[in-house]
Amino acid sequence: MTDENPPRAASDLAGGHTVRRYDEELAKLRAIILEMGEHVVGQARSAVMALVDRDDSQAYRVLDREPQIDYLSLDADEEVFRVIARRQPTAVDLRIVLALSKIASDAERAGDKAKIVAEQALELKKLSGDSDYLRDDLRAALGRLEDAACSMFERSIRAVVNFDVALSLAIFEDEPRLSDASTEVRHLLGEDDQKGLSQRQVVCLLTCAHGLVRIGNHASNIAEQVIYVALGQDVRYRNREILIETLHHQGY
Amino acid sequence: MTDENPPRAASDLAGGHTVRRYDEELAKLRAIILEMGEHVVGQARSAVMALVDRDDSQAYRVLDREPQIDYLSLDADEEVFRVIARRQPTAVDLRIVLALSKIASDAERAGDKAKIVAEQALELKKLSGDSDYLRDDLRAALGRLEDAACSMFERSIRAVVNFDVALSLAIFEDEPRLSDASTEVRHLLGEDDQKGLSQRQVVCLLTCAHGLVRIGNHASNIAEQVIYVALGQDVRYRNREILIETLHHQGY
Repeated sequence: MTDENPPRAASDLAGGHTVRRYDEELAKLRAIILEMGEHVVGQARSAVMALVDRDDSQAYRVLDREPQIDYLSLDADEEVFRVIARRQPTAVDLRIVLALSKIASDAERAGDKAKIVAEQALELKKLSGDSDYLRDDLRAALGRLEDAACSMFERSIRAVVNFDVALSLAIFEDEPRLSDASTEVRHLLGEDDQKGLSQRQVVCLLTCAHGLVRIGNHASNIAEQVIYVALGQDVRYRNREILIETLHHQGY
Repeated sequence: MTDENPPRAASDLAGGHTVRRYDEELAKLRAIILEMGEHVVGQARSAVMALVDRDDSQAYRVLDREPQIDYLSLDADEEVFRVIARRQPTAVDLRIVLALSKIASDAERAGDKAKIVAEQALELKKLSGDSDYLRDDLRAALGRLEDAACSMFERSIRAVVNFDVALSLAIFEDEPRLSDASTEVRHLLGEDDQKGLSQRQVVCLLTCAHGLVRIGNHASNIAEQVIYVALGQDVRYRNREILIETLHHQGY
């Protein structure tokens, strides 16, 4: 992406009068994103709890709360519009607001995935009644997938606060954990000896697993935007291993 | 979203000197989006063909071509940055460029889904060898899902050309067709008498179906942005039936 000024290091984002003033203008936008992020992690945790505990009312609470994230994303878009229209940013200032806009969009989409998990929890409850449909190994694998996804997402939102490169790097390094957990769940669901589960139950559980993976993917997208702001490099389609190595080499 | 000017009707977007000049500045961005859209539809059709015909080389071609869409999305982001930095748009002009930015992002994500279908086609081929794993009813249902998704997506991109409200409305009206086709595929895959299919094959086919549905969802997102530009209303979280009725009432 074109910049008229050379990129500023992450630490510089808090320094300098102009930047500070701009940061204040962006404070509302950041606050909205942080609130969205907290909601997403809470929703994802609650949705998996609803699934594992076969808890209908927990699932309904997730569905009831979902519009909060949607409305926050409308607020975020409005702030992006307002900041650009009023401040007419260029160079790094424009880069920041466009990155925050993408981050808000990823947070909103991650919230959708938590809702999908809650919907599947309800469907599974309907299909299964009170019988415990989760074998121990599958339950444990789903727990690992949830932990990987939520921990990545929670850190991605924290990384936004100070455009923290090291934290973003840690998220990239966690991607194999997410991917391994996902493979494990898919593998367990793909076994033909899942005799306790009907095909429909498998379909629901797979949809949940997919949703959790996507929450982790959104965290990675957010981390990419943090890097973009902090280092001025669009790393979206770079080889991940080389990127991780390069960032380590740069002292992160 | 805040606007300093009242919204312009879609037909006004081509009129007036200032608007025309701005339209020219946006021409490159629109051209990139149209190119992305063509790629997405081509990729989705090819990926489903690879799946249905068990055609490895077709699937590999889809994977090989996928980076084209990714790179176009980087070009789109660069254009968004350039137009805002140079033109400092406000009001409806800013609304257009921010909407095009979201549209490019949806097109890129739709391209990802075509890639996922191609990956699953390869996986299915590996699992199934030369045996025909698709029962006729499932093949037909997948075809209906592909048609619904691709037809929605193709029209969403055409709607971007003139910010065409009527075409966007037609996409909203097609959503039940997408949803019905998806339910049908999920239902067929959820039947316990899918004796010809292993759980792993079911998992792959379900992932494909999910990808196709998401392509249709991205088309709906794009149509929402078209409405946003043309009518100045953010309709993302409005009740769809009421929205369709209102647009009809307004003569679309």
